[in-house]
Amino acid sequence: MRLLCFFFVLCSALMPLAAGQSPRQINLMPVPASFRVGTGQLLIDQTFSVALTGEKGTLLQRVIQNFVGDLSRKTGMRFDTKPGDRARATLVIRTEHASKEVQELGEDESYNLEVSPADAQLSAPTTLGILHGLQTFLQLVETTGGGFAVPVITIQDKPRFAWRGLMIDVSRHFIPLGVLKRNLDGMAAAKLNVFHWHLSDNQGFRVESKKFPKLHELGSDGLYYTQDEVRELIAYARERGIRVVPEFDMPGHSTAWFVGYPELASAPGPYEIERKWGVFDPAMDPTQDKTYKFLNEFIGEMAELFPDQYFHIGGDEVNGKQWDANPKIQEFMRKHEIKSNQELQAYFNKRVQEIVSKHKKTMIGWDEILSPDLPKSTVIQSWRGQESLAGAAKQGYRGLLSHGYYLDLIWPAWHHYAIDPMSDAATSLSPEEEQRILGGEACMWAEFVSSENIDSRIWPRTAAIAERLWSPQQVQDVNSMYQRLEVVSRHLDWFGLTHNSSYGPMLRRIAGTNDIAALRTLADVVEPVKDYAREETATVVPTSATPLNRLVDAARPESDTTRRFADLVNAIVSGQANDTETKAQIRMLLTRWRDNQTSLQPLLDRSFLLKEAAPIAQDLSALGAAGLRALDYLDRSERPPDPWKAEQLALVEEAKKPKAQLLLMVILPVQKLIEASAGGQLSSSSN
Amino acid sequence: MRLLCFFFVLCSALMPLAAGQSPRQINLMPVPASFRVGTGQLLIDQTFSVALTGEKGTLLQRVIQNFVGDLSRKTGMRFDTKPGDRARATLVIRTEHASKEVQELGEDESYNLEVSPADAQLSAPTTLGILHGLQTFLQLVETTGGGFAVPVITIQDKPRFAWRGLMIDVSRHFIPLGVLKRNLDGMAAAKLNVFHWHLSDNQGFRVESKKFPKLHELGSDGLYYTQDEVRELIAYARERGIRVVPEFDMPGHSTAWFVGYPELASAPGPYEIERKWGVFDPAMDPTQDKTYKFLNEFIGEMAELFPDQYFHIGGDEVNGKQWDANPKIQEFMRKHEIKSNQELQAYFNKRVQEIVSKHKKTMIGWDEILSPDLPKSTVIQSWRGQESLAGAAKQGYRGLLSHGYYLDLIWPAWHHYAIDPMSDAATSLSPEEEQRILGGEACMWAEFVSSENIDSRIWPRTAAIAERLWSPQQVQDVNSMYQRLEVVSRHLDWFGLTHNSSYGPMLRRIAGTNDIAALRTLADVVEPVKDYAREETATVVPTSATPLNRLVDAARPESDTTRRFADLVNAIVSGQANDTETKAQIRMLLTRWRDNQTSLQPLLDRSFLLKEAAPIAQDLSALGAAGLRALDYLDRSERPPDPWKAEQLALVEEAKKPKAQLLLMVILPVQKLIEASAGGQLSSSSN
Repeated sequence: MRLLCFFFVLCSALMPLAAGQSPRQINLMPVPASFRVGTGQLLIDQTFSVALTGEKGTLLQRVIQNFVGDLSRKTGMRFDTKPGDRARATLVIRTEHASKEVQELGEDESYNLEVSPADAQLSAPTTLGILHGLQTFLQLVETTGGGFAVPVITIQDKPRFAWRGLMIDVSRHFIPLGVLKRNLDGMAAAKLNVFHWHLSDNQGFRVESKKFPKLHELGSDGLYYTQDEVRELIAYARERGIRVVPEFDMPGHSTAWFVGYPELASAPGPYEIERKWGVFDPAMDPTQDKTYKFLNEFIGEMAELFPDQYFHIGGDEVNGKQWDANPKIQEFMRKHEIKSNQELQAYFNKRVQEIVSKHKKTMIGWDEILSPDLPKSTVIQSWRGQESLAGAAKQGYRGLLSHGYYLDLIWPAWHHYAIDPMSDAATSLSPEEEQRILGGEACMWAEFVSSENIDSRIWPRTAAIAERLWSPQQVQDVNSMYQRLEVVSRHLDWFGLTHNSSYGPMLRRIAGTNDIAALRTLADVVEPVKDYAREETATVVPTSATPLNRLVDAARPESDTTRRFADLVNAIVSGQANDTETKAQIRMLLTRWRDNQTSLQPLLDRSFLLKEAAPIAQDLSALGAAGLRALDYLDRSERPPDPWKAEQLALVEEAKKPKAQLLLMVILPVQKLIEASAGGQLSSSSN
Repeated sequence: MRLLCFFFVLCSALMPLAAGQSPRQINLMPVPASFRVGTGQLLIDQTFSVALTGEKGTLLQRVIQNFVGDLSRKTGMRFDTKPGDRARATLVIRTEHASKEVQELGEDESYNLEVSPADAQLSAPTTLGILHGLQTFLQLVETTGGGFAVPVITIQDKPRFAWRGLMIDVSRHFIPLGVLKRNLDGMAAAKLNVFHWHLSDNQGFRVESKKFPKLHELGSDGLYYTQDEVRELIAYARERGIRVVPEFDMPGHSTAWFVGYPELASAPGPYEIERKWGVFDPAMDPTQDKTYKFLNEFIGEMAELFPDQYFHIGGDEVNGKQWDANPKIQEFMRKHEIKSNQELQAYFNKRVQEIVSKHKKTMIGWDEILSPDLPKSTVIQSWRGQESLAGAAKQGYRGLLSHGYYLDLIWPAWHHYAIDPMSDAATSLSPEEEQRILGGEACMWAEFVSSENIDSRIWPRTAAIAERLWSPQQVQDVNSMYQRLEVVSRHLDWFGLTHNSSYGPMLRRIAGTNDIAALRTLADVVEPVKDYAREETATVVPTSATPLNRLVDAARPESDTTRRFADLVNAIVSGQANDTETKAQIRMLLTRWRDNQTSLQPLLDRSFLLKEAAPIAQDLSALGAAGLRALDYLDRSERPPDPWKAEQLALVEEAKKPKAQLLLMVILPVQKLIEASAGGQLSSSSN
C-alpha cells in the first residue's frame, strides 16, 4: 500500500488512481493535525462491530452505544451495539485510561486512527480522544460503489486549543432542552468541547434555584430548566466530551434576578422581566453585604449543580447609571476611595471571586472584569477584541477569544474562519504569554433566534470556527473549507439538527402555500442584514414577543447560491474560464432570477409576510435582466452604450440598500458582469 | 354577512368575491359533517387568546396548552398559553362536561365552531369534541394578505364512525416512543381516536412485564417499552382524544413469548426470536391449564396497565402445525370432541375471553376468533374482507374494517379512500346490523418500516382513510381529496412528522452526495411494488436485520408528480385541453426525464445502493424520449409509422416489469400519449 503524505491541508486528497477509480475527497472538518491517505477502503457492512481493549468503563460503553446509534442513522443499517470480540471486530478501540471523573480543561484529547482494508484501529490516551476519533470515523463513512466504506487512512490528531466552545444565550429567547441536546451533538461532531450556557440576563433567569425560588419562578415566565434537566444536559454533554460552563451574568444584565429579589438591585423596585434588547440600567448593589450573602448561597448551590471547574460571572456592559443615582452607593465609594464605576465593579468582582473560589471554582468573565487585583487563575473571555485578549495574556491572565465569533451578527463562514486567536495583537506575545490563550468560543446571542431557526444560525458556520480552534493554524484554504462545510452541514442532519430542514417549512408558512419554488429562488440569494443592523433598522422596536417568522428569519446567514454564482462570474470575468458550460450556468441563473418576479407575484399579493419583500424581488428581477444583457454584450464582444451602463449601475446602487432587513447578495457579481461588459471583450482562453 | 351552504362536499368552496378578492379554499381534512363558509376572516395576531366557559378541568387545560403550542409552531408566533378573559378572547370555548375519566367508545365527539370576523366560538358536549374542533381551527389557519387568519365559517361536525383507528406493529421493527408520539399527533390532526398498539408477535415482545420479566428480557433484544413509558404514551394519547388498545397476539404469532417461556408452546423449545417474516408454526398450547394460568396473570397485569375497555388478543393466522404434531394435543381434541384446529382455537378463545372478561375488559380480535360461542360483546376486526365483517354483524357481533386499509401494501390514497365499511357486503345489512359496524382501522405492519420511513408509509395516506371514517359517506370526490391531502400533508410537518422531511436525507445517503437533483427526479416517479410483492420478489430473504436504506425504502408510496402528469396528459388526450401551457408542461417533464439519465449516471456508478436502479433510470429516459416524439407527432397532426408505434409499445411493456422492487409510474400516461399520437389528431378545442 502506497501512502501519500498530507499535512495541515486539504479537501481533495487525490490518491494515485487505479484504472476507473475516481478521485477521493477527504471531507473531514475539522482537518486533523496530520493524516495520510492510502489506497483502498474498509467496508462497513452489517458485520460491523466494535471491540474494546484497555479501558472499558461505563462512560466508554455509553460512548460506543451512541456511536453505533449514529452510525446506524447515517447508514440506515442496524448494528450490534455491544462491544464484541477483538479478533472479528471492524473497529478496535484502545483507550489507555478513562477521562477524569469531571472532564477537565487541558486533558489529553489526542487520538490515532489507522484504517486498513481489513479493520480500523483507534487508540487514545483517554476517552476524550476516542470520542473525537469516533466522530472522525463517522465523518469518513461514505456511500461507495462497493458499499458503505471508510477510506484507508492514517490519522494522528490533536487539538490546537484546549478550550473550544459554543455559548448559547437561553435568556433572551428560551431554548428548550431538546434543542440544546441536538446542538451538543453538533458540537461533538465538530470536536468542540465547552458548552457555555448563558443562563441569566435581563430577559430571563433560566435555571431552577431551590435556595432562591423566586429567581426562576418570577424571572422566567415559567420557561426555565429544572435542576434535574440541568443534570440531564450535563450528563448528555459528558458523553460527548463536552464540559458545561454556566454563566450567571452580574452585576449588570441582571434585571430578571430583581423581579423576585429587588433588594439586590442598586435602585428600588419593583422590577419586571425586560422585554426589549440592549443595555439596561439595573445592576446589583455592590456596596451592601446582603448582595454577597445572597451570591454566596446562590453560587454555592450552583457550584454543586454544575460540576465544571469554571464558573462564569458575566460582568459585561454595566452602564453604572443606577450606581450614579444611588447616594448610598456614592457615599460608599467616597468612603472606600473608589474613584469610578469601573473600580466599583472591580471591587464587586474581587468579592465575587472570593465567593467563587470559596466554592472551589475558577472564575471566568467577559473582558470588563479584568483588573489587576484578580488572581491570575481568572479567565478572561474577550468579546471586545484581540487587543483586549492579548493585554490580558500579557498581564498573566488566561483568555478566550469570542470577538469575531459572534454568530448573531450573521457574518459569512469565511469571516469567522479568518479570525485566529493567535493573530493580530496576539502575534506580539511571548511563547509563555501565548500559552495563556486557551482558545475561543462561538457565541449565539438570542435576540433573533427561536427553537425553529437557532440551528440555522449556529450551523454550519460554527464548524468553520471549530476548525479554526482545532486544526493547525496553517489550515486556511477557504475554498476547501466551503467544500467541506457543505458536506459537514448535511452530515449534521443525521443528528437531528434542523439548520437545513427548517428552511422549507418556514418558507411555506411565509408563502401561505406549499408551492414555494419562486420564494425559494428569492430566499436562496438573500441574507439577513449584518452586525447590529437588524435591531438598528427595525421599524418597530423588537421585543421578546416579536414573531420570528419573516423572510429575514428564514433566510440563511450565507447564500451558497450566490457564492457559487460569484465563482462562475469570477471565472469568466478573470478570463480563467470562457467556456460555454460556465456561461450557460450563469445565463440559467440570471434567467431564473429575471423571470422569478412573475411566479412570485401571486404569493406577494397573498401573504402579509411577503409584502415587505416585494421591492427586493423586483431588484432581483431587474438584476437578472441587467446581467443577461451584460452577458449578451460580452458574448458579442460589443461595448454597451454608456447610458446603459450608467443606468444599470444606478440600479445596482439602489439594490444595495437593505430591504425588509435583507441584503440581496447577487448584486456584486452582477455588477462585475456589467463592468466587464463595459470594459470590453473578455479573454478568450478557455480552461 | 351572506352565507353559502355546503354540505358534504368540497375543497374549493368559492365565496361571492369582493373586488380583488381571491377564491378561498377550505382545506379541511376530514371534511366536516356540515359547514357554511361566510365572507371575511378572523385575524390571528399576537393578541390571540383562549377563554374557557363551562367545564375547566385539568385535561382541558392541557388540551388548550397543546393547542396553543401547535398554533405557535404553525404561525411562528408566541401566545399566552393560559386561558384568559372571555370578553377579550379570540377563541371562546364552551365545554358542557368533561370526557369520561377513561375515554370510552361512543362518547359524544361532536362540536360546533362558529368563526366570525370578531371571534370564534367553539362548543361541544365533551372535551373530545373540543379537541376535534381545535384541530379543525388549526387546519383553518392560513397565511393571508392581512395576516394569519381563519375564514369566517360555521361548522357542525361529528364523526360518522365511533372507532377510527391506526394500528402500528412495533414487533417486527421496534418503533421508539418518540416516533409513536408524533404519530399520535398526526392521528389527532386527522381526528382518529384509537391507537391500536400491536405489542407482540413472533419477532418481538415489546412491553415490560413485571410478572413475567422473561417476556421482554428475552423476547425483545432489549427493545421494549417500560411500563412507565406505556403510561406516558397513554397519557399523551389521552390529551389528544385517543384511546390506546393493546394487542397481544395469541395463540399464534407468539414465538417471542416462548423464548422466555417455552412451556407455553405446543412443541418443546428452545425458541429464538423470529427474524424472518411470514406465518410460523409456534402456537400456544390450548390444552394445558398452565397456559391459562399464565394468561390470567399476564392479562391481569396488562389490564391494569392499559385503562381502555378493549383488549385485543390477535388470534390471526394459526397454521396449526404444532397442534397437529403434538400427540397430547391430539388426545385432548379427541377426548373433548374437538374436530378441527379451528374448533380448538375457538376453545382457546372462549377460555381467553373468560379471562379477559374476568379482568373487566371486552375482547377484540381478528376475524379468525369469530365463533358462535363467544359473547356478543366481542369485537371482530376484519383483515380478511367485508364479507367477513358483514357476516359478523349478522351474527350479532360488532366489527371494524381493516381489510383495504393496510398501509404496508403501499396502495395509493384513492384506493383506500374508495373503501367504505358500509359498502360491498355491508350493504345487505339491516339498520340494526349496520349499527354493529363500529368503524375501521388503518394498519401499519412493520416488515419494511423503520423509525426513518414509517411516517412516510402512514402519512399522508392515513388522512384519506380518516376522512372515510369521519366524514359523511357522500364525501367521495377524489380530486378534492388529493388537493386537500397535499395541504394536510404539509400541515402535519408542524407536528414533527417526518414523512416529508426524511425524503431528502434518505436520497442523499443513497446518492452518496448532496447533489440529488437527478436522483430526486427518478425517485419522484417511482413507487414501491404493491401488495406482498416486496417480500415475494426479494432476491435475498428479508429479515429484521435487512437494511431499509434502498430506493424502494425512500420512494414515496404514491407519486404525486405522476398523478399531476397523468392529469395533464388526460386533459390533452381527452381533448379537454389543447393549450400551449399544458403541452409545455408535459414537454418540460418529458424532457427532464429523457435527459435525467446523463445526470444520474455518475451517481449510478458511484453508489452501491443505486446500482439496482440503473435499468429503471434507463426506462425513464427511454419513455421520456418516446413521449416527446409522440407529442411531436401530435403537434404536427402526423400519424407515426406503425413500426415506431410497435417499438414504443414494446418498450412500454418492458418498462412495466418491476425493477429494484420499484414501479415506474409514468408508464401509463406515456403509453396514452403514444397511442393518442398513433390514433391521429387530438381535438383542437381548448379550455
